[in-house]
Amino acid sequence: MGSIIKRRNIIKFTNGKTINIEDSVVTEFPVTIKVNEKEFMTMVCTPQYIEDMVIGYLASERVIQSYKDIKNLWIQEKEGFVHVEIENLHTYYETFQNKRYITSCCGGSRQGFVFTTDALTAKKINSNHVSVTPEECIHFMNKLQNSADTFKHTGGVHNAALYDQNGFSLERMDIGRHNALDKIYGYCLKNNIDLHGKIVAFSGRISSEILLKANKIGCEVLLSKSAPTELALELAEELEMTTVGFIRGEDFNVYTGSERIIFSS
Amino acid sequence: MGSIIKRRNIIKFTNGKTINIEDSVVTEFPVTIKVNEKEFMTMVCTPQYIEDMVIGYLASERVIQSYKDIKNLWIQEKEGFVHVEIENLHTYYETFQNKRYITSCCGGSRQGFVFTTDALTAKKINSNHVSVTPEECIHFMNKLQNSADTFKHTGGVHNAALYDQNGFSLERMDIGRHNALDKIYGYCLKNNIDLHGKIVAFSGRISSEILLKANKIGCEVLLSKSAPTELALELAEELEMTTVGFIRGEDFNVYTGSERIIFSS
Repeated sequence: MGSIIKRRNIIKFTNGKTINIEDSVVTEFPVTIKVNEKEFMTMVCTPQYIEDMVIGYLASERVIQSYKDIKNLWIQEKEGFVHVEIENLHTYYETFQNKRYITSCCGGSRQGFVFTTDALTAKKINSNHVSVTPEECIHFMNKLQNSADTFKHTGGVHNAALYDQNGFSLERMDIGRHNALDKIYGYCLKNNIDLHGKIVAFSGRISSEILLKANKIGCEVLLSKSAPTELALELAEELEMTTVGFIRGEDFNVYTGSERIIFSS
Repeated sequence: MGSIIKRRNIIKFTNGKTINIEDSVVTEFPVTIKVNEKEFMTMVCTPQYIEDMVIGYLASERVIQSYKDIKNLWIQEKEGFVHVEIENLHTYYETFQNKRYITSCCGGSRQGFVFTTDALTAKKINSNHVSVTPEECIHFMNKLQNSADTFKHTGGVHNAALYDQNGFSLERMDIGRHNALDKIYGYCLKNNIDLHGKIVAFSGRISSEILLKANKIGCEVLLSKSAPTELALELAEELEMTTVGFIRGEDFNVYTGSERIIFSS
């Protein structure tokens, strides 16, 4: 799959002078998913955990209902093709792929959904397996930040992690916004990880896309050091998820689902 | 189209205490482009300059060859539909939309292209209308940063600008990575702006997608305060563009096309 970083000669301008140095640059690797030999989707990603990413992506797009729907998966490394063989493939995935969700046509009343697949796949998180203290919010965010330090100098990658209060920890990075979460989801499906009571930490903005990825993983609490969007918060309310943003130093903002945060009184 | 910011009651945790405050959150607005009444693409964006964004997007995806190919464009504001009527629509746009570029099938030898449409649309920038000094690189980046200050407190938006050395200045923001550049491109096409000798400044990472958007606008020099990816730099070399990243304070890195930067000796 190639390296996640390449060395490159660049000209650095500093203190008014130029110097020629060798620098590290993150790679972007194109992956094309072929479902039953038909081109399904092309994404660019950091070339690690490609199989997990593809499994997670197909599950979150509802092309597969569970991991065992995949009969075969093989990777053509050089070309960046991932071939997935799915038995009894539902045809609705083709009908709905990237299609706008129109409330009236599906008979539902779900607010805030942009894509039909999301409206069909996202589920209300009405369990309450998780309650977190402010200290835990800060701790999990710091843990993610520390895990990400290796790639800090190359800049601009997204980091995501799945944690729980019993010591479970799974951290992934990617140059693509949602790929790190797909890598986490795919790993969990493949390894049959119990997804109850999990917490997602994400380095970037909580967009509607990220909120939905976290929802599909089954996460109750989504932590971020950045800002949410209004659409993500509307979805979080609809799906009964807790969103905590701007976790910086000892401070943070709780946007939705504050009942899962235990503030000592 | 609705507001670009919404007010929202949140719980702020600071200095170990909670306070209830009203905060600003950026909106994400779904826009579905319908080309000759057929659903083409759905994107989420900041609800400003929607018409420009759609024109820029269709041009960069080569659905239109020029602005006058659009016979009619109307917006259904509440639903977020943009209807575009195009006469003599080429059918290849449907064949190639989001399709992986396979070098052998198209007879070309273009390296680094992920999508077929990009390989067909991107053009070598072999003109040299622009030479910039280090001071100009820093100046244009500061100018972009200052224009972006209004939205700084809401976090997580991308800022892009088109500048030239004769005082031309066009700045746009969006929550979506490439939307700000599409808004710039569409504005220029609609208003017949001369695109020679222009410089693009971008707040975020130089990914292959951003590099290609800047290329299609016709830009020779791409400035960023963040990091590039290796794939973006390979494309920049192939397309003979200048890329300058990590512009912070008085320092920056020149990755490709350094002949357009005038370092005083």
